[in-house]
Amino acid sequence: MKETFRISSKTVSCYFDEAFSQLKNLFSDVKIIYVTDENVFRQHADKFQSEKVIVIKAGETFKQQPTVDNIVERLIALKADRQTLLVGVGGGVVTDITGYAASIYMRGVRFGFVPTTILAMVDAAIGGKNGVDVGIYKNLVGCIRQPEFLLYDYTFLQTLPKEEWINGFAEIIKHAAIKDADLFAALQQNRIEDYTSSGKALDELIQQNVKIKMTVVAEDEFEKCDRKLLNFGHTLGHAIENSYLLPHGSAISVGMVAAAVLSQQVNNLPAEDADALQQLLQQYHLPVYQNVEADKIWQVLLMDKKKLGDDIQFILLDQIGKAKVMSLSTAALKLFFDDYFKSGKAVTA
Amino acid sequence: MKETFRISSKTVSCYFDEAFSQLKNLFSDVKIIYVTDENVFRQHADKFQSEKVIVIKAGETFKQQPTVDNIVERLIALKADRQTLLVGVGGGVVTDITGYAASIYMRGVRFGFVPTTILAMVDAAIGGKNGVDVGIYKNLVGCIRQPEFLLYDYTFLQTLPKEEWINGFAEIIKHAAIKDADLFAALQQNRIEDYTSSGKALDELIQQNVKIKMTVVAEDEFEKCDRKLLNFGHTLGHAIENSYLLPHGSAISVGMVAAAVLSQQVNNLPAEDADALQQLLQQYHLPVYQNVEADKIWQVLLMDKKKLGDDIQFILLDQIGKAKVMSLSTAALKLFFDDYFKSGKAVTA
Repeated sequence: MKETFRISSKTVSCYFDEAFSQLKNLFSDVKIIYVTDENVFRQHADKFQSEKVIVIKAGETFKQQPTVDNIVERLIALKADRQTLLVGVGGGVVTDITGYAASIYMRGVRFGFVPTTILAMVDAAIGGKNGVDVGIYKNLVGCIRQPEFLLYDYTFLQTLPKEEWINGFAEIIKHAAIKDADLFAALQQNRIEDYTSSGKALDELIQQNVKIKMTVVAEDEFEKCDRKLLNFGHTLGHAIENSYLLPHGSAISVGMVAAAVLSQQVNNLPAEDADALQQLLQQYHLPVYQNVEADKIWQVLLMDKKKLGDDIQFILLDQIGKAKVMSLSTAALKLFFDDYFKSGKAVTA
Repeated sequence: MKETFRISSKTVSCYFDEAFSQLKNLFSDVKIIYVTDENVFRQHADKFQSEKVIVIKAGETFKQQPTVDNIVERLIALKADRQTLLVGVGGGVVTDITGYAASIYMRGVRFGFVPTTILAMVDAAIGGKNGVDVGIYKNLVGCIRQPEFLLYDYTFLQTLPKEEWINGFAEIIKHAAIKDADLFAALQQNRIEDYTSSGKALDELIQQNVKIKMTVVAEDEFEKCDRKLLNFGHTLGHAIENSYLLPHGSAISVGMVAAAVLSQQVNNLPAEDADALQQLLQQYHLPVYQNVEADKIWQVLLMDKKKLGDDIQFILLDQIGKAKVMSLSTAALKLFFDDYFKSGKAVTA
């Protein structure tokens, strides 16, 4: 099923439940070069036969500039030019890096994604944000440029480890928490196995989430207002993710619970909503607390891209399904986090 | 004198004959971080007192990714955030790298330029193309993003070596050759000393050239049609520049003469126009021929960003003041260059 979304002057086409092998037919007029990681390449070698493929090392640790440098060298060796289409096949690390390499190679060549994880399918591959980490600083360099297509081939999920399914549900629960109380209620009725075992339930869930994110991005591509809400759980999440080598989903799950507690304190979020969020995350096997040294993550937090002078633009919940941006002083935030991490557990736990 | 140009949805302000020290007053609401090179910093140390400055090594050799990586590290150390304005103070290498670093740091922060060479004033700092070389491949990675201002402080030119003046006149003569027969005639009447010795003549010449380039860029920011003409002399020029460590002006001067000879052969350029171009370049002390190994530069030429399948989009002259894009097959071009470089001299010399 094909669905198109309009983002500024660009059209992003989504091919849901489509075979990877169809790509060559959909884009028969261009030279395709694939970028994937070692895991995807090894587990799906049959899909890449006789294709030009650039294989990068797997994992967030390699989402750094040297990997981009290597891709550029390989593109030169493969004689990629402005008629080349780069296709990133993998999780968020692969799609972020591929989008970035395509945006800067020859000042921009065409690109699209085949997300192979739940997280990339519902979040990372959508919205055009790309780039790499710089040391422990998440996504510190990059740009915003939309892929021209996303192709969803669910056969890639057959090899997805259980923890990667869990990882993806953090962003799904985030979408529900900030934008869709009905989706939140539906998720409460189900368990993760209801989606892993049913192609139909999964396809519906993914389409729902793609639509939530695409709609937000279409209204605010450059994150001047509503798109900021998608950062719910990410301010603290990003600060602890690389410092403690957490999966992205775990990091933002911890971040969302902390943001919900803060929402109770400064934004009158009802305690039952904060509880419901924490319980839903636990229901989908996500961690809700992480022991950290407050001082250590504080230095990372101060480099957050959402920092505005002495304030940080923090995302808080009004209620389940509704969020807002609030400017909080770094001083007030520091007090909150010092106290929060001193308690040694999520407050509502 | 302030003049503004509209490029897509952005406004680029040009402050002509304005003091560098005025920058702080013009942008008093932001944190400014300067990027410059060792030469400019040493020769104009007084201008940078008590400013935050990132100093990079001077020269095209350092227009490579590691320099960008260093700038990013320094920006982190200086706590640059989205309220920071990056100002590149230098020649084309500094402005290209600063624009690139500003475009990718935190997915884009504000930036402007203070060009300190003739070449940067009339060409490199204008038009939003930024980026770095990859090995010998010129500007292979980068993006297009407009600076929000250009400030012209001619006191920087007091320390400009003679060869850098000559370097800049290659782009001035290029503008005349492709767009402005009157400017071409005026240049024929003068010598380089007429501009180096008179502030008024120089200010006028620079404003004229800024206007030529800004007008072309405003009509075609992403180089779909008319902006391609600005690449006159650059296809061969770029191929020999890094291979033979030539100054950019020398490389494109050689490239323009070759393109004029080719224009005679395939585009009926009158011989007297080709002669006039060559003579004007020599009048401004620019080289018109370079001994090269045709095979060596051919490999670089095949990576040209203007390559379109088996053709290269080549810029040819119709007459002085008028140029066009012509698709030439790589095979035909190879024959031409093999022959041209076998002759051992510019054909019209």
